[in-house]
Amino acid sequence: MQTKVYLTDEEMPRQWYNIAADLPSPLQPPLGPDGNPITPDMLAPVFPMNIIEQEVSTQRWIDIPEEVLAILSKWRPTPLHRALALEKALGTPARIYYKNESVSPPGSHKPNTAVAQAWYNKQFGIKRITTETGAGQWGSALAFACSLLGLECKVFMVRISFDQKPFRKLMMQTWGATCVASPSTETQAGRQILAKHPNTPGSLGIAISEAIEAAVTDPTGATRYSLGSVLNHVLLHQTIIGLESKKQLEKLGEKKVDVVIGCAGGGSNFAGLAFPFVNDKIHGADIAVIPVEPTSCPTMTRGPFVYDHGDTAKMTPLLPMHSLGHDFIPPPIHAGGLRYHGMAPLVSQAIIEGLLTPRAIDQIECYEAAVLFARTEGIIPAPETSHAIAAAIQEAKKAREEGREKVILFGLSGHGLMDLSGYDNFFQGKLTNYPLPESEMGSAIRELNGLPKPKVVRSGKW
Amino acid sequence: MQTKVYLTDEEMPRQWYNIAADLPSPLQPPLGPDGNPITPDMLAPVFPMNIIEQEVSTQRWIDIPEEVLAILSKWRPTPLHRALALEKALGTPARIYYKNESVSPPGSHKPNTAVAQAWYNKQFGIKRITTETGAGQWGSALAFACSLLGLECKVFMVRISFDQKPFRKLMMQTWGATCVASPSTETQAGRQILAKHPNTPGSLGIAISEAIEAAVTDPTGATRYSLGSVLNHVLLHQTIIGLESKKQLEKLGEKKVDVVIGCAGGGSNFAGLAFPFVNDKIHGADIAVIPVEPTSCPTMTRGPFVYDHGDTAKMTPLLPMHSLGHDFIPPPIHAGGLRYHGMAPLVSQAIIEGLLTPRAIDQIECYEAAVLFARTEGIIPAPETSHAIAAAIQEAKKAREEGREKVILFGLSGHGLMDLSGYDNFFQGKLTNYPLPESEMGSAIRELNGLPKPKVVRSGKW
Repeated sequence: MQTKVYLTDEEMPRQWYNIAADLPSPLQPPLGPDGNPITPDMLAPVFPMNIIEQEVSTQRWIDIPEEVLAILSKWRPTPLHRALALEKALGTPARIYYKNESVSPPGSHKPNTAVAQAWYNKQFGIKRITTETGAGQWGSALAFACSLLGLECKVFMVRISFDQKPFRKLMMQTWGATCVASPSTETQAGRQILAKHPNTPGSLGIAISEAIEAAVTDPTGATRYSLGSVLNHVLLHQTIIGLESKKQLEKLGEKKVDVVIGCAGGGSNFAGLAFPFVNDKIHGADIAVIPVEPTSCPTMTRGPFVYDHGDTAKMTPLLPMHSLGHDFIPPPIHAGGLRYHGMAPLVSQAIIEGLLTPRAIDQIECYEAAVLFARTEGIIPAPETSHAIAAAIQEAKKAREEGREKVILFGLSGHGLMDLSGYDNFFQGKLTNYPLPESEMGSAIRELNGLPKPKVVRSGKW
Repeated sequence: MQTKVYLTDEEMPRQWYNIAADLPSPLQPPLGPDGNPITPDMLAPVFPMNIIEQEVSTQRWIDIPEEVLAILSKWRPTPLHRALALEKALGTPARIYYKNESVSPPGSHKPNTAVAQAWYNKQFGIKRITTETGAGQWGSALAFACSLLGLECKVFMVRISFDQKPFRKLMMQTWGATCVASPSTETQAGRQILAKHPNTPGSLGIAISEAIEAAVTDPTGATRYSLGSVLNHVLLHQTIIGLESKKQLEKLGEKKVDVVIGCAGGGSNFAGLAFPFVNDKIHGADIAVIPVEPTSCPTMTRGPFVYDHGDTAKMTPLLPMHSLGHDFIPPPIHAGGLRYHGMAPLVSQAIIEGLLTPRAIDQIECYEAAVLFARTEGIIPAPETSHAIAAAIQEAKKAREEGREKVILFGLSGHGLMDLSGYDNFFQGKLTNYPLPESEMGSAIRELNGLPKPKVVRSGKW
């Protein structure tokens, strides 16, 4: 039986899908410090104008530039697999499929947008891109993209990860990027923090502040900043994942998908796979669409829909999103990419609309799922990805109980070869679930009280 | 321009190619301790009989079992890429192609034979496979294969690598294998060494002894041993690489290949890619076929063709091969998979026949090539693989000097994501080439003087 579908290069999607054209209620705008909507001009020192135009576009289909396609085709179209061995191990009547983004050279879905962003920056005349990275997935993907496009790349890596994950830093170096520990002495923001807290482990919030400062203060004006998730254009670039998956399921003769599952930190991996199916749902299809998060960072399942900053240091505009509060510090789970206080506005609005049914899963259940997957399907998944696998297994067991032949699709967003210490802790019984009492979430959310409130707009259709 | 070719699952080769059917001079047999040829029965406690039959077979085409194909198809056919960006960086008129074996879940070509060997063992009623591993590529590939086929797997990992490369051990554990440091207290051989040298860093020779002992002393009789290179059946299983490559080059309209290049440690990666092209050469095609080794372990370029043991402890039969002597301890280069004193008998005989033109390259030149490759083609190669890349670059530069449109194919045997510390040393200028004076090779080769001598049989055609 065929368990894998490739597409030819010719079958690769030529356009990205922009869900902003189809959301029943339009997205509310980002707000500036004065509570008024941000204008494109205000973002111009941070992002190149061609990306800002994409960020605010409501055009449904947006052409993928030929040169971007050529680079993506180094590893795309990615394979779609049937998880026959996993199905057998679960004794489920469900057919489980997974879209394998782990085959990209940096090992995850992140290069899909890194290549596009680097290309648009280059088109706009930009020579150098700055960014931040936590665990290192995003930083290495952007280093990879800049290397192939001949741009300089500067990555501010959270100090504790910089020290604990030297291999990620080496990936970036091998691709020619400069990676420094944050806080660094290279920015005002970094120096201020270091003066007060010389031994700080750093944070994503601080690293974002440094990367933005390094971009906007370049006297040549040829530097811009890049973000790896959350924003509309990032989610747009990832929709190639779901568009390919749809073609591949058709090739396998699957006419209907019942459940689509992706893990969600900032939201771009989930949205990339799911939004083309959410489009079907908007137009009447009966599909359960499930973004999965850790119970220890329950942005979608327990965080309110608010206007909040994207970073701890309040450098970014206010975004309408589910948030645990910009001061919330998630527990040290191994899925570093899911340790984010907020959620992409497009994903948040789709939740408010009732189009998505978010789910939170405990860390230990996710590792159990990851190990079962590795031993049946052969791929060792990233800790983030294990959340999608755990939800797929929950759904497959439900199908077994109901005796239903469901079709389940999940996103294999990345491999775990750079994150094996989490498996070590799991095998040694050292993992915990970090249950999160209401008291620990409360204070960060209360910080939001003085900020503007987004409208909770529901069309009432779902 | 198309830079990548996939094949469909249906286009995957259905048979392996056995060069033993076509070598102008037949392979000389392995010899036992008494100097007489080994019989299949003598190997029966070590390997299952179906694998022993393959080892001695001279049948040209051997069917790949359906279940093996089904598992290989999780990541095969692997893509063939045109290295357009590398060509551009070199300014060469040559067209450079590479066959990408790094996309397998363990990240190298090793699973091609691991899956086949595990399957034949299972067919023969074996429940448990033992093996040794140095740097960990082979151990993790066998752990992966055993996991998918439901066999137990026990890996003896050289102590120094066990301590220095905890991630490789974790990969094996995640796939359910047991990995112990060698020498261990679990075998007679291990205990003897530990009694004499309690702080030994271990060696591949000791680990082989332990793995064989653990197989042959299992009182249930349901354990066998598995080797990841050197032997005829291992090379056979790898020929799927070259057979796919030929189909892919045809699809791209390339009618003639001028140069085929692979790195060679034990010889299976090189042979897997090259032997189907060597077949063409035997039948008249004009192709340069280049196995590449480190200058610091110059088995093919400076080692004599002799009868020698495959391991330091002299547990294995005597094999007719190029060897630096079983006592030779290669310098600590990062390409651990190329640190082997011998070379596969099939590769050795093809060298003697003049079918291959071996080449040795310095470590630093290999890392320079690896970094250029990573920054142009986007994939960070394994240190072993960098030897093939360096030779391909040498050939591409030669084509530029000659102004010739050569077609160059090399094997990208694996990615380097688990071996980034070598890149770190390279960037810090800490690498050396370990030039090897005659005096350092001599003593190990002199050890061979008392052993039988193979005939140097050359048909004189090349």
